[in-house]
Amino acid sequence: MTRAQDILLTDLYQLTMLQGYYQQGMDDIAAFEFFVRKLPPGRNFFVAAGLAQVLEYLQGLHFEPQELDWLRQSGRFDEDFIDHLSQWRFLGDVEAMAEGTLFFPDEPILRVVAPIDQAQLVESRVINILHFQSLIASKAVRCVLAAPDKLLVDFGMRRAHGGEAALWAARACYLAGFAGSSTVQAGVLYGVPVFGTMAHSFVQAHEVEQQAFAHFALAQRDNAVLLIDTYDTERGAQRVVELAAELKQQGITIKAVRLDSGDLAEHARRVRRILDSGGLSEVKIFSSGNLDEYALHDLLAQGAPIDGFGIGTRLDTSADAPYLDCAYKIQEYAGTPRRKRSEGKATWPGRKQVYRRFDNGVMGGDLITTLSATDSGEALLQPAMRAGQIVTPQPNLEQSRQRLYTQLDSLPPALRGLKAVAYPVEVSESLHLLARQLDSEVH
Amino acid sequence: MTRAQDILLTDLYQLTMLQGYYQQGMDDIAAFEFFVRKLPPGRNFFVAAGLAQVLEYLQGLHFEPQELDWLRQSGRFDEDFIDHLSQWRFLGDVEAMAEGTLFFPDEPILRVVAPIDQAQLVESRVINILHFQSLIASKAVRCVLAAPDKLLVDFGMRRAHGGEAALWAARACYLAGFAGSSTVQAGVLYGVPVFGTMAHSFVQAHEVEQQAFAHFALAQRDNAVLLIDTYDTERGAQRVVELAAELKQQGITIKAVRLDSGDLAEHARRVRRILDSGGLSEVKIFSSGNLDEYALHDLLAQGAPIDGFGIGTRLDTSADAPYLDCAYKIQEYAGTPRRKRSEGKATWPGRKQVYRRFDNGVMGGDLITTLSATDSGEALLQPAMRAGQIVTPQPNLEQSRQRLYTQLDSLPPALRGLKAVAYPVEVSESLHLLARQLDSEVH
Repeated sequence: MTRAQDILLTDLYQLTMLQGYYQQGMDDIAAFEFFVRKLPPGRNFFVAAGLAQVLEYLQGLHFEPQELDWLRQSGRFDEDFIDHLSQWRFLGDVEAMAEGTLFFPDEPILRVVAPIDQAQLVESRVINILHFQSLIASKAVRCVLAAPDKLLVDFGMRRAHGGEAALWAARACYLAGFAGSSTVQAGVLYGVPVFGTMAHSFVQAHEVEQQAFAHFALAQRDNAVLLIDTYDTERGAQRVVELAAELKQQGITIKAVRLDSGDLAEHARRVRRILDSGGLSEVKIFSSGNLDEYALHDLLAQGAPIDGFGIGTRLDTSADAPYLDCAYKIQEYAGTPRRKRSEGKATWPGRKQVYRRFDNGVMGGDLITTLSATDSGEALLQPAMRAGQIVTPQPNLEQSRQRLYTQLDSLPPALRGLKAVAYPVEVSESLHLLARQLDSEVH
Repeated sequence: MTRAQDILLTDLYQLTMLQGYYQQGMDDIAAFEFFVRKLPPGRNFFVAAGLAQVLEYLQGLHFEPQELDWLRQSGRFDEDFIDHLSQWRFLGDVEAMAEGTLFFPDEPILRVVAPIDQAQLVESRVINILHFQSLIASKAVRCVLAAPDKLLVDFGMRRAHGGEAALWAARACYLAGFAGSSTVQAGVLYGVPVFGTMAHSFVQAHEVEQQAFAHFALAQRDNAVLLIDTYDTERGAQRVVELAAELKQQGITIKAVRLDSGDLAEHARRVRRILDSGGLSEVKIFSSGNLDEYALHDLLAQGAPIDGFGIGTRLDTSADAPYLDCAYKIQEYAGTPRRKRSEGKATWPGRKQVYRRFDNGVMGGDLITTLSATDSGEALLQPAMRAGQIVTPQPNLEQSRQRLYTQLDSLPPALRGLKAVAYPVEVSESLHLLARQLDSEVH
C-alpha cells in the first residue's frame, strides 16, 4: 500500500484541468459539495463516515519531489506548471456533517471551499474515502438494527476489496455499533476492539477434533471460542460437553462455540440443547457464514438461540449495493452559483446547509436550503477545516459512535426496519428559485 | 494506508491459533491451497491475478518491534510466544498459476507449503490480495471480449473500495487487456498507461462552455478530450465544430469528445453526424457513465458510433458479483491429506495439480488431480517461491497481459460470450478415491 497522502492517487484529469486553470490564471474560490443522489433499493438512510480520513488526507497535502519528477517525465505538463505544483498546498475550508450523522439523498455531507485548483485536485480521493466508509457504515447499521441485542463482529477482511477497504470497513462497522472486528490492524490503527475464534485448519491439523479443541482452549484460557462444524456440528457440540469437565479441572472455561455452515437456526437449536443438557448453559453460541442484515433478521425471527454473529463478505463488500451513486460537484465559482444540467444528473446549485427538525425528540424532516437562508432545527454541516488546518477538537471514533447511537434513538420507528420507508426531505423555495434562474442562463 | 507487508493486517484468530500451535510444538509442514468454489451467475471462467503482490507480501515478512509490543499489550499472548514471533519469518514454498491464466471452480491457483504457523498466518492477506485482483480481472476481461476493438479505460478510482482497491483494479484491468486507467498512481506503481479527459467542473467554472473547451485544448494541445454533456450534448458537439477551425490555426487538433449521460447510443449517433458534417470525422467519440460489459455489448449491438469507453464504478466494484466464493484451505499436514467436510463447503484433499488439455490449439478440458499423478497437457501450477525467496524471473505485468491474450486465443468460442457456457473440468479418480478414504476416517 502507499501512504495516505499519496497525492497522485487521483484521476489524471484533475491534473490536466489544473494545468488549464493555471494557464488561464483561474484561481478564484470554488465550492464543491459531496452528496449521494439516491438510496439503494430497500434502504432508508445513510450514515456519514470517513471524515476523519478526509481531514487527515487534506491537512498538509503537497507534492513530493519524486511525484513532480514523475509528472515531468510523463511529458504532459509544462515546466512552469510543475514549478507551480511544487508550491501547491491544500489551504481550503471544509464544512461537514459529523461522522455518525444520518443523512439522505441530495444532502451535502461535505463542502470544500478553496481556490479552484485545490478544491478540484482532491476530488477523486475525497470521494474514494467518503463513499466507501459511508457505504459500509450504512450497511452495518442495518445489521445493528436487525439484531440490536447481539454481539456483532466484522469478519470481512479477507474478501474486502484490498487492505484499506478491510481496515476502513472494520472502522465503519465499529462506528455503526458493532462490538468490533477480527482485523488486528484495525485495533492498532483505530482502537477497534478485536475478536477472534479459530479456523477449520486448526481442527484439521489435528488428528482428532477433540484434541484441537483442548489445545485451543489451553492457548486461550479466558477466551476460547471453539469451531464445531468441521466434520459434524452436533458431534462437535457433544465433544465440547465431554471436554468441558476435563478443562474445568484446569481452571479453563469454554466461552462459546461457533457454527459456520448448514442451517444455522436448526444447528443452533440442536447445539443449544446439547450444551444445556451437558450443563454448559453458560457457553454462548456464535455464528458466521454468508450473513447480512436479512439473514440476521430471519435467524432471529425463527428464534434461533444465537448470541453473536461474525459478519463478513456481504458486509465488507456491501454486496446488495456495492456502491452509492455519489458525487463531488462544483456548486459555486468566483461567487456565482453553478449548476450541472446533464440528463438525470442535475445538481442543486450554490453552497447549502441542511436543517433537521425534531418533533418530541423524533426526526421530523430535513430541509436543504441555500447557505444564506436560515431555518430552525439542527444545522448539520459544521466547520471541520479552516485554511487547511483541522478545526479542533474533532470527535474521536468513540464519540462518533455515540453520536450515531443518539441519532438512531431519534430515528422514526418506521425507518428502523429493513424495508424502504420515505423520510421527508424538502428542498427550499430559495434553492428551487436559484436553480430556475441558472437554467434560464445560456452557457 | 499502511505498508504492504503489514503483518497485523490479518484476522486475530491467525495469531491465537499460532499460539496454540506453538504451545503444542506443532511445526510440521502444511499445504494450503487457494481456490474459488463457484462461478458467479453468467460467468464462464476466472482470470488469475495478484500473484505478484502475494509474493511481494510473503518475501521477508516479519514482525516489527512495535507490532510485537502491540500484541504484548493486548494481553492475549504469552511472553514466550511473543519471543517466538520476533524470530518468525516466512520461509515457505509457493506454487501458483501465472497471472493471466484462465481458471475454473475448484482449481487451486496457489499453494503455500510451509511449517504450519507460516502457512496459517498469511491466510487472510493472501486471500485479500488474490480474491480482489482476480475478481476485477475476471470482470474486466468480459468488457474486453464484449468490445474487442475499442479503447477501454478504467475510470473507477473514486468508487473503488479504498485506495488499494483503486490501484489494484487499475492493474487488474490493464492485465485483462484494457488500454489503461485514469488513476495516476497506477502509472507510477505499475506502469499502467494513464488516460484522462476533463470533468464537468472545468466547464462549469467557465461562464461559457466554448471558452472551457478552448482553455482545455490549449492546456492539452495533443490530447484534448472535451466533455460535451454538461448542458446539452448536441449543442456541445456543435460548439466543438465551431471551435475546431479556430484551434486549427493555432496548430491544435481536438482528439475526441466525451459523452457521459443520457441515451449514449442516440447521442453518439447525433454527435457523430454533427462532427462529420462539420469536417471533424477524425475526432473520436469517447463515452462513460454506468458502463459494464452488458452496456458495452448493447451499445455495440445498436451500432453506436463510439470509439472508446471509460468504465468505472460497476467494474471496480464488480457490481454484479462483488465477491467470489473463494477459500484458502489446509489440504495436508505432516504428510497426511486433510479434508474439511462442512455442509456445502467440503474440499478436495491433498496437494493438487491442474492439467489443461488443448485440441488443435483450443482449450479442451482441465483435470484436477493429486500431485503424485501426472497427466498430459499443460501443468498450470508452477513454482513461484522457494524457501521464502521469489523464483526468478517472474513475469512482469506486460508479460502477464500477453499470457492472457494468448489464453483468450485458445478459449473455446462459446465461452467468449456474456452467457454462461460450461467448460469441462474433471476431478481425477485418484482424488475421488482419496476423498472417500478420508471421509471414512473418524476425527
